[in-house]
Amino acid sequence: MTPLPDLRHHGDAEVRGAAAGLTDLAVNVRTGTPPAWLKARIAASLDGLAAYPDGTAARAAVAARHGLPVSRVLLTAGAAEAFVLLARAVGAARPVVVHPQFTEPEAALRDAGHEVQRVLLPEGDGFRLTPEAVPDDADLVVVGNPTNPTSVLHPAEAVAALARPGRTLVVDEAFMDAVPGEAESLASRTDLPGLVVLRSLTKTWGLAGLRVGYVLAEPEVVAALERAQPLWPVSSPALTAAEACCGPEALAEAEAAAADIAADRAYLIARLAEFPAVTVAEPAAGPFVLIRLPDAAGVRERLRRLGFAARRGDTFPGLGTDWLRLAVRDRDTTDRFVTALAKAV
Amino acid sequence: MTPLPDLRHHGDAEVRGAAAGLTDLAVNVRTGTPPAWLKARIAASLDGLAAYPDGTAARAAVAARHGLPVSRVLLTAGAAEAFVLLARAVGAARPVVVHPQFTEPEAALRDAGHEVQRVLLPEGDGFRLTPEAVPDDADLVVVGNPTNPTSVLHPAEAVAALARPGRTLVVDEAFMDAVPGEAESLASRTDLPGLVVLRSLTKTWGLAGLRVGYVLAEPEVVAALERAQPLWPVSSPALTAAEACCGPEALAEAEAAAADIAADRAYLIARLAEFPAVTVAEPAAGPFVLIRLPDAAGVRERLRRLGFAARRGDTFPGLGTDWLRLAVRDRDTTDRFVTALAKAV
Repeated sequence: MTPLPDLRHHGDAEVRGAAAGLTDLAVNVRTGTPPAWLKARIAASLDGLAAYPDGTAARAAVAARHGLPVSRVLLTAGAAEAFVLLARAVGAARPVVVHPQFTEPEAALRDAGHEVQRVLLPEGDGFRLTPEAVPDDADLVVVGNPTNPTSVLHPAEAVAALARPGRTLVVDEAFMDAVPGEAESLASRTDLPGLVVLRSLTKTWGLAGLRVGYVLAEPEVVAALERAQPLWPVSSPALTAAEACCGPEALAEAEAAAADIAADRAYLIARLAEFPAVTVAEPAAGPFVLIRLPDAAGVRERLRRLGFAARRGDTFPGLGTDWLRLAVRDRDTTDRFVTALAKAV
Repeated sequence: MTPLPDLRHHGDAEVRGAAAGLTDLAVNVRTGTPPAWLKARIAASLDGLAAYPDGTAARAAVAARHGLPVSRVLLTAGAAEAFVLLARAVGAARPVVVHPQFTEPEAALRDAGHEVQRVLLPEGDGFRLTPEAVPDDADLVVVGNPTNPTSVLHPAEAVAALARPGRTLVVDEAFMDAVPGEAESLASRTDLPGLVVLRSLTKTWGLAGLRVGYVLAEPEVVAALERAQPLWPVSSPALTAAEACCGPEALAEAEAAAADIAADRAYLIARLAEFPAVTVAEPAAGPFVLIRLPDAAGVRERLRRLGFAARRGDTFPGLGTDWLRLAVRDRDTTDRFVTALAKAV
């Protein structure tokens, strides 16, 4: 059904069906979400479902949150829709995707008929972006920051250095709100030609089921993407959520959650250090870590029998069967996981 | 922003902003919707928002409701997404849109680069479909049944007669669930080559804000449309609603609502007969009626000042400035409207 089935494997497939009872370390959504206050806001919006969606307020809220004009903001039905819109509406002769990273941008580009060149950042460099990694003639570059699945946070200036006239630079910041202070974000930058920043509300706010995210870009790019959208592309509950998640209390909650994630991640990494065979890709900045260990595929299978779902690494270009991605969870969950891992390795 | 701005005018624009206080006869959504039981079902689904959408149950429910295999069903983010998918994923050299009808199919076809031929059904024929209306060489035909804005319900066999090998026949049945017994529906037919039936849950169930509808078609067509969708195209609350609206109680409620609409429409038409200058396109079968009257544009403006929003007719190909579309409402609303109309004509 898809040209490259591997690229269409996502963590949610690891916790479906018979695996529904597993402790989920495969999907990078914050646990305990959506919070009660957000669910209440969304539930209240259901009274207005008979009306067609009106994105005006949500767009204004996102713009204000990033200090941008509304003409630079486009709400989308999740980042997944944004990738499809970009692949269809932004012309590119030499698109480049920087891997390892989330596979959907490449899949969307291929589906739209593009030939995609892969840049593979090597493990030896800590999967870090280097200025010479991206070919000069690339006219569309996709990079994640922080990067899924490596958890690498590239310096803002290293990413910004990729921008130039005649090139669309797509920075997937789906996990940036899990980084304290959103350090290294380019979301509010308006001085970089061709910059397109993608943001998600899915991970921090537990809205994977609602389909909501947004694009920040030059007004002409926003207009081109908007023309490629269906009518009423984002549902009213999703718009309500987007607006709610841009408020000052929400931003403070996200910042506190980012600090918790950092602490929980440090704890997970410390516990993983007990396993000589396990290497963690560091420094990790996202709400997940990438680990290398012998026979990761076998370990993953044994972990499943012990009740834990980990994300396979071999569907990410540039990684292989020795890799797994683990979502950062609270310490109790990590302790239980480490106990299982000791049996599984 | 769009190639043909007129085609992108919809009833919701008539009740936005300063017009938000108007009694709405412009948008064809059943009043008092969504019902409390449906809102409760959707609200309960919010607990699961952290998980990515899984359309399996909704797809099975829709298939069972129409007695079809799941391979013939595709859930979409409203009919609007279905039009975009069809325009992009179904090849056509000579697409034909039968007007007057909902303008979004033509707009989506044009946006996808198609040259669209319009067939205009004349008022003199009661806007009815005739076998010779559609050119033989049309390889994609779009027709609405019952048709928005004319409210004409074409006989199932007249629509079915348009199907043939090598042609995609798109029947927009967005308002079919407002027709008692769903008479003249082709939804469950599997014997017609190239048949694509579009259905909506928006109008009967008041889910315009949720973005949910579905396509019934041959498995290969469903697969092609699905490949053109973004990942996770329909939100979990929308999937919950789709499943809920396929249950036996929901179908019984829709059937009762259809009977109410028929009675309310008869009352509206009877009251409109008091105006010698007003002609109603009859027989009307949808939850709206199309009327012709002199200076309809001026009447519409005066109605707005009197507190009523009617849908302009002049953005529909084949109609002109003498036409208005009126949503069927309860008798009290109709009485108030008729009082205003007497002042406005």
